[in-house]
Amino acid sequence: MALEKKFKLDKILENDCFLIKDLELSKLLLMNNKLYPWLILVPQRPDMMEIIDLNCNDQQTLLKEINYVSKIIKNIYKPDKLNIANLGNIVSQLHIHIIARYKNDNSFPKPVWIDNNRTYYNNKDIENIRQYF
Amino acid sequence: MALEKKFKLDKILENDCFLIKDLELSKLLLMNNKLYPWLILVPQRPDMMEIIDLNCNDQQTLLKEINYVSKIIKNIYKPDKLNIANLGNIVSQLHIHIIARYKNDNSFPKPVWIDNNRTYYNNKDIENIRQYF
Repeated sequence: MALEKKFKLDKILENDCFLIKDLELSKLLLMNNKLYPWLILVPQRPDMMEIIDLNCNDQQTLLKEINYVSKIIKNIYKPDKLNIANLGNIVSQLHIHIIARYKNDNSFPKPVWIDNNRTYYNNKDIENIRQYF
Repeated sequence: MALEKKFKLDKILENDCFLIKDLELSKLLLMNNKLYPWLILVPQRPDMMEIIDLNCNDQQTLLKEINYVSKIIKNIYKPDKLNIANLGNIVSQLHIHIIARYKNDNSFPKPVWIDNNRTYYNNKDIENIRQYF
């Protein structure tokens, strides 16, 4: 019997984020940075780097999950713009950022990834945010 | 009879890019910057800002077009990583960047949007690139 390779969350993502929920395909994470409402979807498939590495079914589920998270972020946080991106230049494990951006946030209109500032959530914050999803 | 609102390509995108091809849903543009192989999909629907503004059918077509462009970029340019993103912090008209990134490119691992350097394509370059798609 061949051993099936298992998905394991990247260590950097694990350290930088809180787990909000396991969705059908993806782990839904929250970046531990109060400066931006910043969610991350990580499809739970081993050795995936690009969206096109996922099979058709998984891509469909990912699209559904992007819609699900985007709509909640839009309703709860009322951003001026959503930023949705798969970059992966540092963490190669496939992950999709969904970030609420405001015209008066810490780096608008620049992308958030160059902003090294951070303020951390407390446990109460995380409990509250988990209830939205 | 109600006048249907028509799609019109944003002026900044029009000035910064070459049209490569009209796909089923999107205009496929090439950013006029030889520093990065950088394609942009612009769904030809009026008044769209977010991916979730598109209806289900259009989202499906967009996903198909992201796959189509990603696969060609991967085959032709052999990047270390694809960057796929809808930001829209400056140009609000819905558009999706698909960019080939290399570990030795001008800004890796940072995102390309903060790099103000540019070198321009000539007509021969554009003719060649059009043939890939």
